[in-house]
Order: sequence, then C-alpha cells, then structure tokens
Amino acid sequence: MLAAIVASSVFGDQVRIESVRSQMQNGPHPKRREPPMKWEDLSAQPCSISRALAVIGDRWTLMILRDCFLGVRRFELFQKRLGVSRTIVTDRLRTLVEAGVLRRVPYQDHPVRHEYRLTEKGLDLHPVVMAIAHFGDIHYAGAEGPPVLRRHKGCGCDFHPVQVCSECGEPVSARQVEARAGAGFPAP
Amino acid sequence: MLAAIVASSVFGDQVRIESVRSQMQNGPHPKRREPPMKWEDLSAQPCSISRALAVIGDRWTLMILRDCFLGVRRFELFQKRLGVSRTIVTDRLRTLVEAGVLRRVPYQDHPVRHEYRLTEKGLDLHPVVMAIAHFGDIHYAGAEGPPVLRRHKGCGCDFHPVQVCSECGEPVSARQVEARAGAGFPAP
Repeated sequence: MLAAIVASSVFGDQVRIESVRSQMQNGPHPKRREPPMKWEDLSAQPCSISRALAVIGDRWTLMILRDCFLGVRRFELFQKRLGVSRTIVTDRLRTLVEAGVLRRVPYQDHPVRHEYRLTEKGLDLHPVVMAIAHFGDIHYAGAEGPPVLRRHKGCGCDFHPVQVCSECGEPVSARQVEARAGAGFPAP
Repeated sequence: MLAAIVASSVFGDQVRIESVRSQMQNGPHPKRREPPMKWEDLSAQPCSISRALAVIGDRWTLMILRDCFLGVRRFELFQKRLGVSRTIVTDRLRTLVEAGVLRRVPYQDHPVRHEYRLTEKGLDLHPVVMAIAHFGDIHYAGAEGPPVLRRHKGCGCDFHPVQVCSECGEPVSARQVEARAGAGFPAP
C-alpha cells in the first residue's frame, strides 16, 4: 500500500526500513544515464523538493530571491549586489521569469526598460527565504547579533519564523515528522 | 541610526528608498574584485541568508539534506539516489561535516566505514527543507497530489508547514514583514 507509513521513526537508533520507505529511498530515480544526472533532470523526480530545487536550487537564484524580498527590482542593482557577471544575473532572472516566480514590468519607455517583481507564486517562496535567514541568524550571527532584523507588522514585534503544523498549530520539529508516499508517488 | 526602519512597505507601489534601506540594498558588499565574487565569499557578507547559503546553497547539498531527513545515512545510497559522481557526493558530505551539519559515525570495524547523521545544527535545517517541500507541493504536484505526505506525530494528521510569528503566533506573509538593519550590520 503506497500510503503505508514509511518509517515510524526516521531518527530512531533502530531505523525500520520498510518496503515503501525503501522505495522512497532507493527509487524510482531517473534511469541510469551516461553522463550522470543533470540538474535539469531533478524536475522529473517524484519529489516536491527536487522539483522546487530545479527552479530555485541554484545559489545565485536564491541570492536574487533574497534581494527581491528586500525590494530590489532592477537588473543593475541585482548585479551590483551579487558582484557576479551580467550573464549569471541575466540567466537567473530569465529562469525565474520563465518559472513564474518573477514578472517583468516596464518602468521606462524610451528605451523600454523592465524591472522584476515577485508574483504571487514568488511570494510563496517567502517561507523558504525566511527559514534560511533564521538558520543563518542562529548559527552565523556574530557577537553583535543578526545583521538584519525583521518586524512583523501584525504585532509590531521583531520576530523569527516558527514552523507550526497546519492542523494543530503546534511547532513541528524534525523528530516529529513521518514521511510517507502520497498518491502522487509513482507505483512500483 | 542603524536600527531605523528600513522600508515601511517593501511591496508597496511607491517603495520608499530610505538611507538605511539603501545601504542594505547597495552595500556593503565585497570589494570589487577581478575575478568577480566567488561563492565562498558569500559567507563574509553581512547577511544571514548569504552566510547560510555559503554552506547549504549548493543544489546537491540541498538534495543530500533532503535525503538525510528521509533517513538516508550511507554514502552509497546518497550516491545512488542523486545519480551524480562520487566526487560530488564526497565533496558535499565533507562540506556538511565541516560545517557541523552532519557527523560521521562508524558503523563497521573491518574495514572502518562511516555513516552520516544530522547533528542538532543539521536538525535546525528542517524548516528550510520543509519550506522548500511545501512550495514544491503547492506548485509542482501533479493532479494526483504531492508525491510525499508528512504526518505530524503530535496530532497524528497529515500536515503542511505554516510559518508564524515567534511573538504573536499569527501566520506571517511576505507583505507583513519589514526588514531593517540590526546591530550586526556593519556601520556605514
């Protein structure tokens, strides 16, 4: 049964490797190829993480997204902040537009120039960027504390993001999560 | 004042570029170099996101972390699942061990073989992986739904992660967040 619970305790000392879990761990994966799997092949994997990373998993892409959430919109400023080649910035912005994460909006007529704004889909990446920021705040802030603070307009407080369960509202940690194959997981 | 509010509305139509916000957007950034900024330089930026991405921003690293949270521990299985060269897997595992995200634990004596387990620091990456998974579930699941479901042991329900404010407990969206420079942000 595909929907069988995959592992009763992913982090237990005695990890039970059950059939479906074994399937999730061992495959299906792309047919063995020569040359080996490329980045682009990830979008074909039966995994929402790999599909998402096929779009946003690139290092510079994530840095561009960081800047988008700080309000950066124009090519020159992205390029200046990243300090990488125009080619890299052009390529990553194009990928994000094609993926529907950013949209190009003209801001000038003669000549026509565009800026890049987050779409609704792009705004859905906010939890990803915030989760990365919080991990960095915990482990890489110096003695002075985080370089960037974030205030929640709703309550007016500086905050950090907490991940909670959509069903019960309680905080969720890794040890409290059981993964199992869903209906979208390919049959063996 | 460094702690001045940076932008009253990052997503408003009329974005107010204030002095500190301008500083966050425009710099400080690494001195202009030839050749341009390398990935490794990111850890020197005054930004928790870039510091975190200097460790986890690599595509294959994030895929390895995905697998760690599914209980994968051994080199051969990481390599089989990723379908990439042993060199890439070796390199990424080494980076994660050096960063304190994974630890090597011997599981066999003759010859000595090691497996890779998440440390407490590594477990702190769970919200990142879950946020990426949820974005993928929203935007890249097929008609059948997500390929992988996750159950919260605390309440027994299949769930998705919701990001809430640490202070008031309410869900936080991108439009409700104001970023501003903190004490760890370099003086102009």
